[in-house]
Amino acid sequence: MGGEHIKKASILSIGNELLNGRTVDTNAAYIAGRLRAINLTVVSVHSVPDEVDAIERALALATGEADVVVATGGLGPTDDDLTRQAFAGFLGVELVLHPDLLAKVKEFFDRRRIEMPARNEIQACIPQGAAALENEMGTAPGIQAKKGGKLLFAMPGVPAEMRHMLDTLVVPELRPLVTGQAIVVRRLKCFGAGESKIAELIGDAMQRGRNPLVNCTVQTGVITLEIVATAPGRTEAEKMAEQEEGSLRKILGTLVYGTDDQGLAEVVGEGLAWMGRTVAVAESCTGGLLAKLITDVPGSSRYFTHGWITYSNDAKSCELDVPTDMIEKYGAVSEQVAGAMAQGARRKAGTDYAIAITGIAGPGGGTEQKPVGLVYISVDSRSGTDTSRHVFSFDRSSVRLRAAQTSLNILRLKLDLTGQPHI
Amino acid sequence: MGGEHIKKASILSIGNELLNGRTVDTNAAYIAGRLRAINLTVVSVHSVPDEVDAIERALALATGEADVVVATGGLGPTDDDLTRQAFAGFLGVELVLHPDLLAKVKEFFDRRRIEMPARNEIQACIPQGAAALENEMGTAPGIQAKKGGKLLFAMPGVPAEMRHMLDTLVVPELRPLVTGQAIVVRRLKCFGAGESKIAELIGDAMQRGRNPLVNCTVQTGVITLEIVATAPGRTEAEKMAEQEEGSLRKILGTLVYGTDDQGLAEVVGEGLAWMGRTVAVAESCTGGLLAKLITDVPGSSRYFTHGWITYSNDAKSCELDVPTDMIEKYGAVSEQVAGAMAQGARRKAGTDYAIAITGIAGPGGGTEQKPVGLVYISVDSRSGTDTSRHVFSFDRSSVRLRAAQTSLNILRLKLDLTGQPHI
Repeated sequence: MGGEHIKKASILSIGNELLNGRTVDTNAAYIAGRLRAINLTVVSVHSVPDEVDAIERALALATGEADVVVATGGLGPTDDDLTRQAFAGFLGVELVLHPDLLAKVKEFFDRRRIEMPARNEIQACIPQGAAALENEMGTAPGIQAKKGGKLLFAMPGVPAEMRHMLDTLVVPELRPLVTGQAIVVRRLKCFGAGESKIAELIGDAMQRGRNPLVNCTVQTGVITLEIVATAPGRTEAEKMAEQEEGSLRKILGTLVYGTDDQGLAEVVGEGLAWMGRTVAVAESCTGGLLAKLITDVPGSSRYFTHGWITYSNDAKSCELDVPTDMIEKYGAVSEQVAGAMAQGARRKAGTDYAIAITGIAGPGGGTEQKPVGLVYISVDSRSGTDTSRHVFSFDRSSVRLRAAQTSLNILRLKLDLTGQPHI
Repeated sequence: MGGEHIKKASILSIGNELLNGRTVDTNAAYIAGRLRAINLTVVSVHSVPDEVDAIERALALATGEADVVVATGGLGPTDDDLTRQAFAGFLGVELVLHPDLLAKVKEFFDRRRIEMPARNEIQACIPQGAAALENEMGTAPGIQAKKGGKLLFAMPGVPAEMRHMLDTLVVPELRPLVTGQAIVVRRLKCFGAGESKIAELIGDAMQRGRNPLVNCTVQTGVITLEIVATAPGRTEAEKMAEQEEGSLRKILGTLVYGTDDQGLAEVVGEGLAWMGRTVAVAESCTGGLLAKLITDVPGSSRYFTHGWITYSNDAKSCELDVPTDMIEKYGAVSEQVAGAMAQGARRKAGTDYAIAITGIAGPGGGTEQKPVGLVYISVDSRSGTDTSRHVFSFDRSSVRLRAAQTSLNILRLKLDLTGQPHI
């Protein structure tokens, strides 16, 4: 690179399996995250089939867009692994067999007491003038090359092999070449309002070109605000990000439930553990999903002890002492039954809190008065029983997930976690 | 298209989150699979940031490579959603507000009793001369346009919205335009053996270039064998696929549990419903996951009535009558306790079957005698209690999922579903 700085990267994902729907490309996101962390901007990801022409065209395209091209896939030993050939073609050189690489491939098989199949010999070939990247996790070495001031890397497509090679060889090679400013990223996780509502609340913070920039993404009801601060030095960028976080938190208040990758169940769980409190659940329409979310968190046995899935009316009355005449009078999906379920669960489990959920997840079972998506959520505690009515949208799995999340959020707000160290 | 046939497609994934490592692009694989099923070859996937220029360049690139361009993402209501603008720019037209689309967006909010934020108005704008694709799952309509004989589609990036729009509007639009040979795809779902074991059993069926071709993919323990038969006519391809399916089923026997997208819980549920039987569950380490899987299936209330999550020892003895001295003597993770949990659950629920799971999901809690991953699964029925010991691998979530799936598979084999119409 002659001492020049690099800024932009393009990712090339090579493999037929990426284009016929058989494989989701998880490599691209992993590489993108790693490159971004060293301040390289990924400007594009291109996925192409195992064809020499297609790979060469993609290399030309990517080197036109970026300073660095990071490719994965097509380095295996079979006939449809053509990345080596395409790199050689793009570089205008021949493939050369490296005896030292061949020895390593052979050694890989020796260690497993298997004779090296003849077809694996191709894995010891790399384009003339290019360097090999050692593969500590498999047989196929990677390739590092240069053309017209652009840096090219090829790595295996097997995620474990790729990740190791990227982290130990490619990123260390690129880091010192990256120019410019420090980037600090912080994430705030929000629940309880829609994307447009939050965008409205935070006003122009999301405007393009602003620094810090705030990006907003939604996933299953959880809104992630990502603050990206850019400055000449890291300290300055940290400070900018911190100030932005402070002002967003001020505006959003309790809509912010956590940071980074925290889930609602994790935050509620840490809160319960911190306060030395316990919770039980009684689920009808969510059918175990709420308990599953709570117990997804390692160590949840500190605060979670009992759960009931009372899917039938009989289960509600036998297991949670919901009066049968109450179910008859108001229906299983009612404020009254939700409250009785929560009370029954807390009484039987002897916990500080109990959450109950009853509703109509669909697709069937809705009526005009009680449509699909209608859910009652009740939280019982020493200070009483709070029950709320919700109508959630879309399909069965969305209704169930939103109901479970909302119930966790209700408990979170009840716990009053302000000032806790972990949020 | 003037009656001409189409062959090639390119997929455009739009969104900053795809280029900074935050989001894995699952949409591209879904779309690729669906397009392949109608005999369209996906020649490339391009991921670009939320920038008008980048999107326009990608549209030019993709229309140069393919007859159809299917784009996702960037149709939300916020300032960084720029796909509409880029489509208009590429088509050389203005964005036009459609009052009927606006009414639909408003109605979406009305149904939720929320006032439509002003920024959502942009979602009713589409490029002049383009058609809107109705979004039944969200607010943002899609776009369908033509340029220079090429077909362009834009869909929302939210997977549920995209999938519905693709399957109900885009694929039906494209299917009649596709040329060439008939491709018939069938899928067999297997559980109970690893990928290499299955590959060994079916021998050369997976060889490249073979017709029908058999592809094998693994996801969370479930192995999918995909049979792809190609022939000049659909009837012939159907026949080839059917024969291949027959011979694979013969080889694999009860390892095959279903077809297409069927899950274990669905197959077991249909079996129970068909036989008029019921099931209850008692979960410790899976913490509600098994019940969640069972109740993911619409209509599961026909056969699922009660579930207990007995996370603490106290819950196991109080709720399921597991003797406290048994827990003391053998430990909560033991064959004895698993059996007692299953018996207690079946007795209290009055069901035909009860499944119990107790184990160590980790990461903590393992010992030399009882390592992380150790799980006992018990199924109780009129004919007795069968308990088996398993050691599952990897992390907490894998152990939990594998335990829940394995318990469903054990019940499936017990039910003897041979000859049932739906399998």
